[in-house]
Amino acid sequence: MALIVQKYGGTSVGDTERMKNVARRALAAQAKGHRVVVVVSAMSGETNRLLGLVKQITDRPDEREQDQIVATGEQVSIGLVALAIQAQGGKAQSFLGSQCRIVTDSTFSKARIKSIDADSIFRVLDEGRIAVIAGFQGIDEHGNVTTLGRGGSDTTAVAIAAAIKADACEIYTDVDGVYTTDPNVAPRARKLDRISYEEMLELASLGAKVLQIRSVEFAMKYRVPLWVKSSFSDDPGTLVCPEDQAMEDVVVSGIAYDKNDARLWVRGVPDKPGVAAKIFGALDEKAIVVDIIVQNPPHDGVCDLAFTVARADLTKATDVVGKVAKQLKARAVESDDRIAKISIVGVGMRNHSGVAAKMFRVLASEGINVQMISTSEIRVSCVIDPKYTELAVQALHTAFGLDGPAPVAAKKKSKK
Amino acid sequence: MALIVQKYGGTSVGDTERMKNVARRALAAQAKGHRVVVVVSAMSGETNRLLGLVKQITDRPDEREQDQIVATGEQVSIGLVALAIQAQGGKAQSFLGSQCRIVTDSTFSKARIKSIDADSIFRVLDEGRIAVIAGFQGIDEHGNVTTLGRGGSDTTAVAIAAAIKADACEIYTDVDGVYTTDPNVAPRARKLDRISYEEMLELASLGAKVLQIRSVEFAMKYRVPLWVKSSFSDDPGTLVCPEDQAMEDVVVSGIAYDKNDARLWVRGVPDKPGVAAKIFGALDEKAIVVDIIVQNPPHDGVCDLAFTVARADLTKATDVVGKVAKQLKARAVESDDRIAKISIVGVGMRNHSGVAAKMFRVLASEGINVQMISTSEIRVSCVIDPKYTELAVQALHTAFGLDGPAPVAAKKKSKK
Repeated sequence: MALIVQKYGGTSVGDTERMKNVARRALAAQAKGHRVVVVVSAMSGETNRLLGLVKQITDRPDEREQDQIVATGEQVSIGLVALAIQAQGGKAQSFLGSQCRIVTDSTFSKARIKSIDADSIFRVLDEGRIAVIAGFQGIDEHGNVTTLGRGGSDTTAVAIAAAIKADACEIYTDVDGVYTTDPNVAPRARKLDRISYEEMLELASLGAKVLQIRSVEFAMKYRVPLWVKSSFSDDPGTLVCPEDQAMEDVVVSGIAYDKNDARLWVRGVPDKPGVAAKIFGALDEKAIVVDIIVQNPPHDGVCDLAFTVARADLTKATDVVGKVAKQLKARAVESDDRIAKISIVGVGMRNHSGVAAKMFRVLASEGINVQMISTSEIRVSCVIDPKYTELAVQALHTAFGLDGPAPVAAKKKSKK
Repeated sequence: MALIVQKYGGTSVGDTERMKNVARRALAAQAKGHRVVVVVSAMSGETNRLLGLVKQITDRPDEREQDQIVATGEQVSIGLVALAIQAQGGKAQSFLGSQCRIVTDSTFSKARIKSIDADSIFRVLDEGRIAVIAGFQGIDEHGNVTTLGRGGSDTTAVAIAAAIKADACEIYTDVDGVYTTDPNVAPRARKLDRISYEEMLELASLGAKVLQIRSVEFAMKYRVPLWVKSSFSDDPGTLVCPEDQAMEDVVVSGIAYDKNDARLWVRGVPDKPGVAAKIFGALDEKAIVVDIIVQNPPHDGVCDLAFTVARADLTKATDVVGKVAKQLKARAVESDDRIAKISIVGVGMRNHSGVAAKMFRVLASEGINVQMISTSEIRVSCVIDPKYTELAVQALHTAFGLDGPAPVAAKKKSKK
């Protein structure tokens, strides 16, 4: 008998028929003797519908009120899924974030989970019921409703799995696992059976939309075995787990791309200690995540600083940086929202040299100019012109030996 | 400087443009120096949309889960109205039932308010902000979300007005006050400037849909001056207040009708003590409200018992009564969902005799048969065939001298 957390995304609960399917899956797991917690997102389209209403009122909504509004999407889902389980003869109880005390900080729209009341969940499980918990939402210590940001339901699921010490956390989505790259871009992309937390983290943070980055961080930190599965098939999916020997034999496990970033330049910054700290401190205060940072060697006592942020944060970031730049007497702040980031990821890189050089060579041979470079122990990322994205992904996928034998059909490996 | 609670119904917050109108009205009251609490319903149609989703899952929903789902309607409204106030330069904070601790019992879908945390509301008012509170919802002592039943937002508004000792509670709706009867049925219906709590209570409970009955009970109990106003005009509306001398000069203040009731008969009930207690006790346990009760004089040791319930409760009531009837060895249980109830209401009846007789005479002269009769100190009700409803209302309206000088236009008295 295992303790399992199943998380279903927006498309998996997109309508009431699909919710009945979710109920069947949850009950099937219970019938095998498992204790089951289900975490659900809002019905697909619902969060956008609610944000659309907000936009009709104001372009600059107070984030507390916006969270109050958008949290309702998950609230509707949990009630309906609990009813669907009951309608199939099962026992279930729904939980809002406030009802199992998913306490977060007060960073509205991007809140971080601080604690979860596992006892409230166990009380329901111990009565033989399925606990159906709202993803994406929590409450702060003042009782305000908070949300965790897009994709936050994954984080809720993993955080709950960690809090109740679940044996597995299954993330159900509309794809049947993690691929070497986006199959829409590279038709010969292959599904991975296993991937390490570290690699998944790099892939998730680099734009592979399968899992939310914080959920992977949480899973890695608490060693929660994470499965990525399709809610529409019985494919075993991909297991995200600690690194093992076999994984290190593969140099590159996957190729990620991201077209949702933008770049800011601060030109002519005085070359003094504490300058970068001022700029990035100010961005951090506004909870703006900075990705790649590049600083040119100083010339005539000034230097240029370039960095990338999510495109959605560009306006806010430009405001913040503009103010700091004025104080620092920098020459100018410029931005570019037409960039793409291509990354190769693999734990095997640790033991292989020349991986970055090979990447630059492949891109150069396709005539693609590299504008910014950033590396980690298991990743190399390049910023390029977005029009070359697909070409770059395909070329790298082939060059690093990731191509499958033939174009992959949607349910190629679907078993039983 | 006064302390005012304004309640806006579903049509008044039916879309974001109307919400901006609500924000303007609330800010206008604040600009006059008042402290303002706004209570809002779900956007019109929203509660039905949510119940439609529930119905797609099951015909017999668990009421805890259903409440969890439908409470989201008001949650969206409060966030949007708070944003609309902020967008107009005002300060506002929204409150869920749980956030100002509107604690109810655990009768899901028909919960009753037990207490409200006035301090949490004053903290926001004292900062110069408008408190925007979700109507219709509360939490029970276990933290479950509860709802108060249809029209429950009126009750929330009055309960809050009582808890914070407000100077007035203004109920904004799509009509500009309380009328002598439904203007759609009797074109010469007149708007009343004032009406007593007692009369309003009889009218509300008899199918005049302007105010929810429990809100009037609350207002009467705590002496909250209650205004019924239109959110689309500046008409002063109708004041519901304690009875005064002038009111008693009018014999009949209004005519109400109700086509939403159904009748149950229990035939051949043994004429023994405790029989009625058993039947109505069982109905009360299921929170089914019984209205008119008529018991025939016993004959051969048995009697017939007839009573009316809301038509929506008929199936449930038939179940309950069927079981009790079996235990009591009653002969049969029959039902009829085609009835109408016509009532005349007026505090002046206390000092005038022959009012009921006059009502029967008027109905008889129109050839309308009276099937059941029920009276209170200030009301006489008759159950009739529903096809005569409009005829009965018009005849009584004229006979009791309620007709206005000419057909009333929708905004006849709209001023300024």
